[in-house]
Amino acid sequence: MSAQSTGRLIGVGTGPGDPELLTIKAVKALEKAEVVAYFAKQGKNGNGRGVVGDVLRTDVTLLPLYYPVTTEIDKNEADYKRQITDFYDASAEMVAAYLKDGKTVAVLSEGDPLFYGSYMHLHVRLADRYPTEVIPGVTAMSGCWSLAGLPMVQGDDVLSVLPGTMAEAELARRLGDTEAAVIMKVGRNLPKIRRALEAAGRLDEAIYVERGTMANGAMTPLAERGDAEAPYFSLILVPGWKDKP
Amino acid sequence: MSAQSTGRLIGVGTGPGDPELLTIKAVKALEKAEVVAYFAKQGKNGNGRGVVGDVLRTDVTLLPLYYPVTTEIDKNEADYKRQITDFYDASAEMVAAYLKDGKTVAVLSEGDPLFYGSYMHLHVRLADRYPTEVIPGVTAMSGCWSLAGLPMVQGDDVLSVLPGTMAEAELARRLGDTEAAVIMKVGRNLPKIRRALEAAGRLDEAIYVERGTMANGAMTPLAERGDAEAPYFSLILVPGWKDKP
Repeated sequence: MSAQSTGRLIGVGTGPGDPELLTIKAVKALEKAEVVAYFAKQGKNGNGRGVVGDVLRTDVTLLPLYYPVTTEIDKNEADYKRQITDFYDASAEMVAAYLKDGKTVAVLSEGDPLFYGSYMHLHVRLADRYPTEVIPGVTAMSGCWSLAGLPMVQGDDVLSVLPGTMAEAELARRLGDTEAAVIMKVGRNLPKIRRALEAAGRLDEAIYVERGTMANGAMTPLAERGDAEAPYFSLILVPGWKDKP
Repeated sequence: MSAQSTGRLIGVGTGPGDPELLTIKAVKALEKAEVVAYFAKQGKNGNGRGVVGDVLRTDVTLLPLYYPVTTEIDKNEADYKRQITDFYDASAEMVAAYLKDGKTVAVLSEGDPLFYGSYMHLHVRLADRYPTEVIPGVTAMSGCWSLAGLPMVQGDDVLSVLPGTMAEAELARRLGDTEAAVIMKVGRNLPKIRRALEAAGRLDEAIYVERGTMANGAMTPLAERGDAEAPYFSLILVPGWKDKP
């Protein structure tokens, strides 16, 4: 199998949700791609798919990669880990079949592909076997702080990107040890995150942003928001830059 | 002065250097902007200016904002701080003059405007006085790890963005307390950063990336690079995601 005969794998960052926040490079890659793959929940389109709806070829082959139904299994259980590993292995082989056939496969990745993106599971399985390119995208966090008009970091500020799944004491410790923070995976972790921010003395600075750059996006100081579960596309921002000149 | 009579301030993220990594939204804003402002060193065009060369109106008013010559003053001295504050104040008033006149002013900002961008100095002075919009951009760090094809963060990883200006012991401590790290402001701090990475036991994981997405970009394991001063557009990446399934 010569290099010329195989296709190209392209991880395409689709940005934070607004189709206009696709890069020119992403649009060009999507316009040309013979196969467009994307991860999605069973029966759903996947958010990345919605964003790129208008730019795909009319004869494009869509390759949805549906996550196995795993909501009833604990994420730390061996069973879940095996199921999800099998799923990524099988997905990579489905993509590889097109690459072997000489087709260019674009994989949609919300935000930026190598920044918490599902695309990475294909990348680590395929990048050393096929010509691969990654097109960076605007991250969800950039989309959120831009919507909020919130100056995040300047000069020598440290920025910490923290998962809301972290233990409360650990989250509080890290919030007290950084100029700025972005807290991801808010969802049902919101009450715990609020307590950690309070323990770190930073609750009053925290801004809650829901559905970043989507049409129904919204922002509010976290102190003014209740503890009802937050949607998946929500973030908490703690801005730095305390010594504005 | 009614809201209708004033212009609009737009902070435009121009991405990591490749003109194709501009977003569609950025291109549209730049095509329409009557005035395009940008920070630059005396006698230089500014990197953002080069990236957007092709998309501006032929009758656009360019407003370069030249930093005062300050290389001979210590950055911590009161003199420097006063000079730079005066410069940002004066720059904001130059932009405000166009806004008062009803003109739309786009301010170029390399990477993402609210992520260590000079635009922020105008934003904090003008956003409460004029209609303001921020268009997020692809950050330099996304450009660099995409060029390197380096899976950075996944799942519950913590990412720390650290300035290379930080004291060595502090840098080493933080490198030992995070899954992934991006070290900015490398330049002449490279030898110190290398020692801090070594102290944290992470030198072998570190990737040095120069001029991210530009034509002459390059990446190399830091352990294989000498200590010669790094150019301004260089970063050191320490990837996370240790437990790939």
